[in-house]
Amino acid sequence: MLDTLFKPKSVAIIGASTKELSIGNVITKNLLHYKYKGSIYPINPKADEVRGIKAYKTIFDVPDDVDLAHISIPSKFIPQAVEECGKKGVKFIIINSAGFKEVGPEGEALENEVVSIAKRYGVRIFGPNCQGIINSDPDIRAYCDFTFTFPDPGHISVVAQSGGVGAVIMQRFFDLGVGMRYYASNGNACDISIEEIIRYWGDDEKTRVIVLYVEGFSDPKGFMEMAYEVAAKKPILAMRGGRTEEGARAATSHTGGLAGIGLSTELIFNKTGILTFRDEEEMCQAAVAFASQPIPAGNRVGLITDTGGPAIIATDELVDLGLEIPPLSEKAKNFLKDNLYQAASVNNPIDVLATAAAPHYRAAMDALMDEEQIDSVYINFVTPPFVDTESVAREMTDVSKQKRKPIICNYMTDKAQWTVTTKILKDGGIPCYDFPEMAAKALAALTSFGKIRSREIGELKKFDDVNKSKAETIFMEAKKSKRQSLSAQEVYEVLTAYNIPAAKWKVVKSFEEAEKAAEEIGFPVVIKADSASIIHKSDVGGVATDIKDKNSVRKIMEKMQKKFETPDLNFLVQKYLAGGRDLIVGAKAEHGLGHLIMFGMGGIFVEVLKDVVFKIAPVTNIEASEMLSSIKAAELLNGIRGEKGVNKDGVIDIIQRTSQLVTDLPIIQEMDLNPIIAYEDRVFVVDVRVKI
Amino acid sequence: MLDTLFKPKSVAIIGASTKELSIGNVITKNLLHYKYKGSIYPINPKADEVRGIKAYKTIFDVPDDVDLAHISIPSKFIPQAVEECGKKGVKFIIINSAGFKEVGPEGEALENEVVSIAKRYGVRIFGPNCQGIINSDPDIRAYCDFTFTFPDPGHISVVAQSGGVGAVIMQRFFDLGVGMRYYASNGNACDISIEEIIRYWGDDEKTRVIVLYVEGFSDPKGFMEMAYEVAAKKPILAMRGGRTEEGARAATSHTGGLAGIGLSTELIFNKTGILTFRDEEEMCQAAVAFASQPIPAGNRVGLITDTGGPAIIATDELVDLGLEIPPLSEKAKNFLKDNLYQAASVNNPIDVLATAAAPHYRAAMDALMDEEQIDSVYINFVTPPFVDTESVAREMTDVSKQKRKPIICNYMTDKAQWTVTTKILKDGGIPCYDFPEMAAKALAALTSFGKIRSREIGELKKFDDVNKSKAETIFMEAKKSKRQSLSAQEVYEVLTAYNIPAAKWKVVKSFEEAEKAAEEIGFPVVIKADSASIIHKSDVGGVATDIKDKNSVRKIMEKMQKKFETPDLNFLVQKYLAGGRDLIVGAKAEHGLGHLIMFGMGGIFVEVLKDVVFKIAPVTNIEASEMLSSIKAAELLNGIRGEKGVNKDGVIDIIQRTSQLVTDLPIIQEMDLNPIIAYEDRVFVVDVRVKI
Repeated sequence: MLDTLFKPKSVAIIGASTKELSIGNVITKNLLHYKYKGSIYPINPKADEVRGIKAYKTIFDVPDDVDLAHISIPSKFIPQAVEECGKKGVKFIIINSAGFKEVGPEGEALENEVVSIAKRYGVRIFGPNCQGIINSDPDIRAYCDFTFTFPDPGHISVVAQSGGVGAVIMQRFFDLGVGMRYYASNGNACDISIEEIIRYWGDDEKTRVIVLYVEGFSDPKGFMEMAYEVAAKKPILAMRGGRTEEGARAATSHTGGLAGIGLSTELIFNKTGILTFRDEEEMCQAAVAFASQPIPAGNRVGLITDTGGPAIIATDELVDLGLEIPPLSEKAKNFLKDNLYQAASVNNPIDVLATAAAPHYRAAMDALMDEEQIDSVYINFVTPPFVDTESVAREMTDVSKQKRKPIICNYMTDKAQWTVTTKILKDGGIPCYDFPEMAAKALAALTSFGKIRSREIGELKKFDDVNKSKAETIFMEAKKSKRQSLSAQEVYEVLTAYNIPAAKWKVVKSFEEAEKAAEEIGFPVVIKADSASIIHKSDVGGVATDIKDKNSVRKIMEKMQKKFETPDLNFLVQKYLAGGRDLIVGAKAEHGLGHLIMFGMGGIFVEVLKDVVFKIAPVTNIEASEMLSSIKAAELLNGIRGEKGVNKDGVIDIIQRTSQLVTDLPIIQEMDLNPIIAYEDRVFVVDVRVKI
Repeated sequence: MLDTLFKPKSVAIIGASTKELSIGNVITKNLLHYKYKGSIYPINPKADEVRGIKAYKTIFDVPDDVDLAHISIPSKFIPQAVEECGKKGVKFIIINSAGFKEVGPEGEALENEVVSIAKRYGVRIFGPNCQGIINSDPDIRAYCDFTFTFPDPGHISVVAQSGGVGAVIMQRFFDLGVGMRYYASNGNACDISIEEIIRYWGDDEKTRVIVLYVEGFSDPKGFMEMAYEVAAKKPILAMRGGRTEEGARAATSHTGGLAGIGLSTELIFNKTGILTFRDEEEMCQAAVAFASQPIPAGNRVGLITDTGGPAIIATDELVDLGLEIPPLSEKAKNFLKDNLYQAASVNNPIDVLATAAAPHYRAAMDALMDEEQIDSVYINFVTPPFVDTESVAREMTDVSKQKRKPIICNYMTDKAQWTVTTKILKDGGIPCYDFPEMAAKALAALTSFGKIRSREIGELKKFDDVNKSKAETIFMEAKKSKRQSLSAQEVYEVLTAYNIPAAKWKVVKSFEEAEKAAEEIGFPVVIKADSASIIHKSDVGGVATDIKDKNSVRKIMEKMQKKFETPDLNFLVQKYLAGGRDLIVGAKAEHGLGHLIMFGMGGIFVEVLKDVVFKIAPVTNIEASEMLSSIKAAELLNGIRGEKGVNKDGVIDIIQRTSQLVTDLPIIQEMDLNPIIAYEDRVFVVDVRVKI
């Protein structure tokens, strides 16, 4: 429990210098400036006071209990300081100083030392190399941080791996006039993790939305567990830095050794129900809406406007973002005709006209609140100099307080002139935006979260008809003989063990066996040379397709035998399949996370269009089905223009079985079922590559 | 010349009511409030003064010349008012009143009447149904508008078809603390057009960047002519409302009858060198950079940062936007090593560290200004409480004044605390942004404009080997006989006339002719039934492919003759082409603009992936080449994985010839060359559909 960290009754500052620009001094100043409700104990062996507060020579001289201690002295002195805090009975320590894991092995050793000392005393460490925490609660007002933005109380809590990013996000909320609840930036996170912080906020009633910035995870699975739990309770909006190769390089060169794990961060967000952003401004502006508005039940927006152009832009943007702007019912239209100006437009968008007064807005809002096929309300409100805008604002906040459907406002005004109207909207919790685009984006974020929250996760099918131990044995054998791949025989036995349908196959050594196999399988067949020494079979003439008779079988085998003179040479005889669609299912191990499962269409779709999708294993039936529908060429799977579609259930089955296989056998590093030939009625794997 | 409109020496307000919230009264107030340097003449038959200014009963009573008159009286009285203005010798009239074209045919007639009266007197009309103009020049200070934002002088000029959007953009610049030069919103634009306004600003020295919002064009060609001219002189940043179907519907329902022309607006912007935006905020923020910074020579960015996370985000965003972050030269690195803190990072991004002072920033900026492989400079500047940020800011403005390379700053601070630093940056013309993403976007916009400005337009090849009159005759014949399409004979003759290569063909009537034609063409052939009454040939069994001998020719023709018993039945015998890639080239007439030319790959690329690109005819060789390289599957045209590429020159030739054909013959409404079969060495059209 982090209660004492975020609600400390007393804070000591070890390293509270009298130098005005030192970190310890700035923290002392910030606590005073923010009107911290607890006791402040600067620790300074030389000074009697810091910023007018009585200082103590050592932590032991503090007459009272210390809940939280800041340490901002040089890193080499910190183990001793932590030891002393332990002895004093301090409960939490924020180590602001740098010089730990982020500077290399020596720093890492120092960090480990600090952690082990802290453990001995049961003290929890926040940091090192970090900013700290802020609690805006009027009863606490803990500004345990050296930054410079002093948030008003509110309902948004922010946690950032990068203090720089966290501080700027905090500043943005401040500039927007929006309050915050908690702030935390824990730097190297040697003990208290972001997971622990978010979990704590998950139970905090006053935190309505959590904003998160990360550059990677040290414990992806732990993060996911927490995220499932908290995202079910309240919205988490998140962004990750380092999503491009260049950005990731910049990230690993500056953070305390947290490996960026590329693509999977966004997959983790998606799987656990966290809303992902790629832009801080959009994330902040969305958070403002989450802090005061309910989540819409669907994506159908009703618009109210008092000006033309911005309604057009709002419409463009909402539609682009996948929202719908349905026509209104006759009932609503009649109600509007009776209650708006005659020249008003009673379509959706409802144009109340620039001269509209409070009753007109109220009628439009009431109509949309009552309208069954509307889930949320977007308002363009430009303040004409000839309208009583204050009463319009009061109607908006009044309707918003009903909390029936979210209201978002593109509020177009000079706030320095329309001060009262602006205050009414702000106090009434109407999220106000400068432009229609951002208002639309915020509404789209609310809508996305509603969709995530109500989505079906699907079933994690556990196939009973698999032979795990058989597959396991095959991989163990390969490992024992230090191979990184499997023979054809082994690969197809693994598929058989997991009931993944493959084109009929047999591995043979001699002509006679091959002929017999081909007859059993049925012509035409494919013959593939199989040996540990043959890597890219098809590039070196190790694959022959569409073989129609025994004679050709013999000819081809002779040719291959001549070409590949290797003692372990075998031949895979396999049914040749013509037509159908080429698909790919793949799996790739991700450090600390398990496996990613990939699906896509073969050929140019993978090579040229990179039209593939990923999910984190284990994959449910609904996730597998989503994979099929979310590739760009998804329509082709349904069949189009006379071409037949594919057996989707068969493909979904293969995805789920592959997911189970790699989850059962973490030894698998990479696995590609490529191609899978899919017909309208059946699906077959015809080639496999495995790396262990 | 609009000089007198934007720099009036005197303004009369016809309809200057004493009612505080009337438009005429607000305009009078605005002129006073903005400290207009000319004379103000309220015209009011009943009052002696308006807002403390002497009023005149009629315009004739004004003792002086009147440069500009506002009219805000009811529309039915306006023809007379215009007549009186004419007699008085007024030079420009801004009609603020609504009730014209936007309300229907009656209003349109009134508008036409007003225009013809004005023409008689040589008076120019701005509006009606509009806001007006603003000139922030300290010597003029003309606020001839009823809006509420009072811009400081600056270098950005804004023109908006929608007053609502224009006003909000103006407000945004005001909130950003950025000055403006001119503002104009001309509503129905019955006389003075947006084209004329932009052309005037093109020659205005103090306008460094023009911001444009439109919802459609009444004269696309006129707009293009102006845009070519002005965009060559200074940047035009533009956005169009109504780009989605829903948005376009909203646009046409509210504007004064300007038809939205869909996709072509962005094509017009692109062709004429206007920078297109889809977000007002991004457009405004980019304009801020254009107003003070030079255009970079290329896309290579050098980053300076004093904080980690925001540098990662900046890197992500810059890379996403197509910019490069090259490594620094050894020379630069050594220079930085000598001049930065030891722990600083001398890579790109250059991390000067949070404690960096002015000389460190200066060294980093100097290094990047001198670095040949760097075209622009991005700075992350968070203001640490322990740094003299004012001297850092002074170094930035000092380097910026050199105007060697653009500098963009992500300035992360509390502006209410760092007031002096903020003012130094603002006065020094450093574009400052709240988040790295927006700073990166602004820099990307500068870079895009640099690319546009230096791009090769290419040659408009005029093919001499075409027989225009032959093709023209064919179309005229078809038109005369009221047909909407051409016969196979006619279509292929048109191709021949324009030297567009088609698969060998012959149109025949009898078996004998067909056999002869097939032999001449060479087997295998295709046979297509051709008659005005057969629309979708292949759907109704009117196409047979891969016919290998005479016998089959006869059989197929018999079958088709039986099926299509129509007197005008002919048969197209054509070479059957196997393999190759299917491509499409198309043309479509756009009202007032000429034709759009389309290129794409056939089959699923068009059907499923909508992978097509458009340009406005006439298309140059470079534009045609861009079309080939800008489809998503462009790689396939080069050849990939053993598959052969296509003869690009041949395709480019067909695109240009098609462009010339439709430009020569505007009668063509739609034309599809589909498919075109492209091989490595040659290209053939094998089917054509024309609509006239």
